[in-house]
Amino acid sequence: MRKYYLGIDLGGSKILAGLFDEELNLVGRNKMRTKPERGFASVVERIARCATDLVDDFDIEKKSIVSLGIGSPGSIDANGNVIFAGNLDWENVPLKKQLEKIMQIPVSVENDCNVATLGIYHHELKAKPVNMVGIFLGTGVGAGLILNRQLYRGTNLIAGEIGHTVLDVNGEQCNCGNRGCFELFASRSSIFRKIGEAIKKGEETQLADKKLENLRSGDLEKAIRRGDKCVARLVDEAAHYTGIAVANVVNLLNPDVVVLGGGVIDALEDQMMPVIDKVAHEYAFPGIPPTFQVIATKLGDNAGITGAAVLAKGI
Amino acid sequence: MRKYYLGIDLGGSKILAGLFDEELNLVGRNKMRTKPERGFASVVERIARCATDLVDDFDIEKKSIVSLGIGSPGSIDANGNVIFAGNLDWENVPLKKQLEKIMQIPVSVENDCNVATLGIYHHELKAKPVNMVGIFLGTGVGAGLILNRQLYRGTNLIAGEIGHTVLDVNGEQCNCGNRGCFELFASRSSIFRKIGEAIKKGEETQLADKKLENLRSGDLEKAIRRGDKCVARLVDEAAHYTGIAVANVVNLLNPDVVVLGGGVIDALEDQMMPVIDKVAHEYAFPGIPPTFQVIATKLGDNAGITGAAVLAKGI
Repeated sequence: MRKYYLGIDLGGSKILAGLFDEELNLVGRNKMRTKPERGFASVVERIARCATDLVDDFDIEKKSIVSLGIGSPGSIDANGNVIFAGNLDWENVPLKKQLEKIMQIPVSVENDCNVATLGIYHHELKAKPVNMVGIFLGTGVGAGLILNRQLYRGTNLIAGEIGHTVLDVNGEQCNCGNRGCFELFASRSSIFRKIGEAIKKGEETQLADKKLENLRSGDLEKAIRRGDKCVARLVDEAAHYTGIAVANVVNLLNPDVVVLGGGVIDALEDQMMPVIDKVAHEYAFPGIPPTFQVIATKLGDNAGITGAAVLAKGI
Repeated sequence: MRKYYLGIDLGGSKILAGLFDEELNLVGRNKMRTKPERGFASVVERIARCATDLVDDFDIEKKSIVSLGIGSPGSIDANGNVIFAGNLDWENVPLKKQLEKIMQIPVSVENDCNVATLGIYHHELKAKPVNMVGIFLGTGVGAGLILNRQLYRGTNLIAGEIGHTVLDVNGEQCNCGNRGCFELFASRSSIFRKIGEAIKKGEETQLADKKLENLRSGDLEKAIRRGDKCVARLVDEAAHYTGIAVANVVNLLNPDVVVLGGGVIDALEDQMMPVIDKVAHEYAFPGIPPTFQVIATKLGDNAGITGAAVLAKGI
């Protein structure tokens, strides 16, 4: 009998489930809305349904599923409880316990950025780097750290909040209370906020008559492809500041490789990566050999489910 | 027969040697100018002389000295070669090999910030924290990282260049080529540069008629004690930005404790630490428990030699 693993990427708006074989090849995916406003019990039930439907779709027996891994926003303790996840409005919820109760298989829970980092490290890079930093640009900005070949979690299991490191001491106020956080320069919401400001100033852009809150990172890519100079400039700026943030982490941690991912990078890789790579190498400390790599993950939005399967398999 | 260890703190201007007993109590110290302009062989000879004179001063037999540890500027490889040290004008020099040849005892070499961090971690904090960051404000600014109870060196053994992480993307140009590096806000040279600029602008300060290049951090402390508002304000600013840099590393690495050291902190601890601690906690990500500590080392300028003795003892 073939064995399978389930990998779940839990986000504030959607649940993504992946079914993986023993070599961690992706067999199939399923998607469902998270609907966090319905509360913890409902979200757990939806995660289980999303996973169970996927298994059923591929005519796979339940007993072939060895285990389930899940990447959740927020800080996760050693028992798989989510200590705090702002965008789900969760505080101290027993995610592992509840999911195991419904699914009747072992469940492993880890922070979403850590999980995506594990997926990139073990599956895409075959665990070759000694030190790797994963930086994810999405609605917000987060990071995962592999140091000396191990996931580094920090004292309170909340390391990697690179989105709230300050890049501009005189910058704008961030939701977190600081000024000039990296997230204000490079998250999807920040890029759209800047486009909105440009429109107000009367700058020409194809997005001027669109409802910006309904747009995605892919719409920015399309606008740039159609010659939208305003959007091109603002995406370029986001890439420039991301390059500086990459250099900051390179100067502090001296990794072999920094891998970029998340929805913004998935959609705008061709526009952003050359700038990020160039600026990161320019801003790296002269004593650091320029051999460090700055790349985009090839896993795209499967990074999360792949890492969750890695977690499930217990690599 | 009692056993002893030698710990050396090698700086661009001075060599500091410490003689330690088996419990790493400091028995005595010796100091000598580095005179790096005379070249590598001469500096090694002076290090050996500084250490040998110290042993002789305390009427200790040579054969009681078990080993010698040394903290050197720059990046150090696993064989004790200094790969690169700008302020000594060294490139690929066999520091361990040459010192062993002269001293006829085992020598261990490590980066100076790493050595000071080891001293603070093992001797002062008794290896209690799981994750600790040491930040040293002197002529320049550097850091050492203890992650999961181990010294973290990075892929090319050059991790910890926190002085060249960017705090102000629109800031002044740094020697390293970047703009707005942390070092430009908080190193001794930066504080004196800002005092020089204030004097040029006609600001009132007791240091207006002094040759700034001859002054030390202790002179800033004295000026503040005598009511010098200009110096107090500029030192306060340096402390403020240091607090932001501490928060950046707290948000990325989530350590138990950040320990400040170096000449600037040794002299200005009372003025700077309350500000650094306050700002670091203000800028820490809301999800990070405020229980992390921000303290100044009690080892003062013995941090380097103590760490070098820890290195010699091979803890």
